[in-house]
Amino acid sequence: MARLSLNQATIKRASVVETVDGCARHGIEAVGLWREPVADQGLARSAKIVRDAGLRVSSLCRGGFLTALDNRAALDDNRRAIEEAAALGTDTLVMVVGGVAGDKDLIGARQRVADAIAELSVEAKAAGVVLALEPMHPVFCADRGVLSTLAQALDIAEKHESVGVVVDALHVWWDPDLDAQIARAGSSIASYQVCDWLTPVPADVLLGRGYPGDGDIDLDRLTRHVAATGYSGDIEVEIFNADIWAADFDEVIGEVSRRYHSIVEPAL
Amino acid sequence: MARLSLNQATIKRASVVETVDGCARHGIEAVGLWREPVADQGLARSAKIVRDAGLRVSSLCRGGFLTALDNRAALDDNRRAIEEAAALGTDTLVMVVGGVAGDKDLIGARQRVADAIAELSVEAKAAGVVLALEPMHPVFCADRGVLSTLAQALDIAEKHESVGVVVDALHVWWDPDLDAQIARAGSSIASYQVCDWLTPVPADVLLGRGYPGDGDIDLDRLTRHVAATGYSGDIEVEIFNADIWAADFDEVIGEVSRRYHSIVEPAL
Repeated sequence: MARLSLNQATIKRASVVETVDGCARHGIEAVGLWREPVADQGLARSAKIVRDAGLRVSSLCRGGFLTALDNRAALDDNRRAIEEAAALGTDTLVMVVGGVAGDKDLIGARQRVADAIAELSVEAKAAGVVLALEPMHPVFCADRGVLSTLAQALDIAEKHESVGVVVDALHVWWDPDLDAQIARAGSSIASYQVCDWLTPVPADVLLGRGYPGDGDIDLDRLTRHVAATGYSGDIEVEIFNADIWAADFDEVIGEVSRRYHSIVEPAL
Repeated sequence: MARLSLNQATIKRASVVETVDGCARHGIEAVGLWREPVADQGLARSAKIVRDAGLRVSSLCRGGFLTALDNRAALDDNRRAIEEAAALGTDTLVMVVGGVAGDKDLIGARQRVADAIAELSVEAKAAGVVLALEPMHPVFCADRGVLSTLAQALDIAEKHESVGVVVDALHVWWDPDLDAQIARAGSSIASYQVCDWLTPVPADVLLGRGYPGDGDIDLDRLTRHVAATGYSGDIEVEIFNADIWAADFDEVIGEVSRRYHSIVEPAL
């Protein structure tokens, strides 16, 4: 099994059908999908396109944003996301949990995430979907993800049957406790995502991702640690980068494949 | 004793004499100096200007950058920084330890920092200066500071007599283990610096600092935890912000003073 998965956000302008066609042309067997382009293509239609192409869906991005003081609308949206994941045939829903609310109460926001995940995990289990909590780089703590470390995500995941974690190289590489937490995660790792950290950080910090090998992360070392847990799932290349988004899809997919095979695969 | 200290970087264009005059006009009793403007004014002259104005020097920024594979030049520069701190009459040298080297070996870089601090601590002690290790927000891990958490800085500081830590709100506010590590730090806190985290992060991430109260950090809570350790030193307002740097010095110092008195001081 070829474990490279193309996360659709790497070719952000592409539709589901263009993404799937690109994977097929480059011999990539799995794809990570996002809800917005799936909705644009239609959920049932997207599921059929992927199925007909014989691709695995490695994950659906994304549920989450559960830190508001009133979470009811967010909970409903997450229930829909769980259903969408199941309809697409993936068991992994990536959860970006949300940032600090206007009250600046970070501890409260983190508690609301834990409470919401407890509630949603029951429905995830019923649907055969794992909620994959994504610890996010602390640069996103204010506006995207109050789970800042793998340890925090595991503290929640370990309490529930259908909750796991995402190890995204960009988000976790700096963590002084990373090796120990990856070992602790073990079979809780629901998704492993790779890209690289670019220095200097570009004007939009969200887009500070590069091809594996172009930045400061020791991906060989990280991949060896993830592999040592027994993780045998797909490995998504997920890159948010304005230049890569502007480039030709085939050129990007080709480069993704080359970097994966030269930098990530040898460490498995 | 009024504990507000104006960190000189908040009015970056100002010379030492302009900074000191501004503090005097606004009744601020302490100042945090930087080596470059001190060198521009002359070390002995800067020391005299501060002394004649009756100001305390709360800290000197900055030593550090100790992660290169060959640290000899950096060690020499840090020895000079220790002497400069002593000459300026401050016992606190802020240490920004440096980023990852080209070999991407983060663990090795962190070890080199620990080794260099062990060596420099002897000279710091002889000079009556504390090396104040500044854990830096992980967004700066690649290029400025591989100490990413207060826990890491304390792991080093606790091994040496003349080594402490800086608690800079911007760098530590996101840390899930913050309360426990501040309590652990106790008398190792050599400097407490405040500003706020702005969202969205501006084009230059280094300049993503705002006046206390303008961002996402619960400074009341953080200040209470720092105060609970018994920390009784100066509290520096240190803001890197392009708009604030472009503004009139007196306007900025006035706003710094108002924010300190309304947001930070009540929590002491």
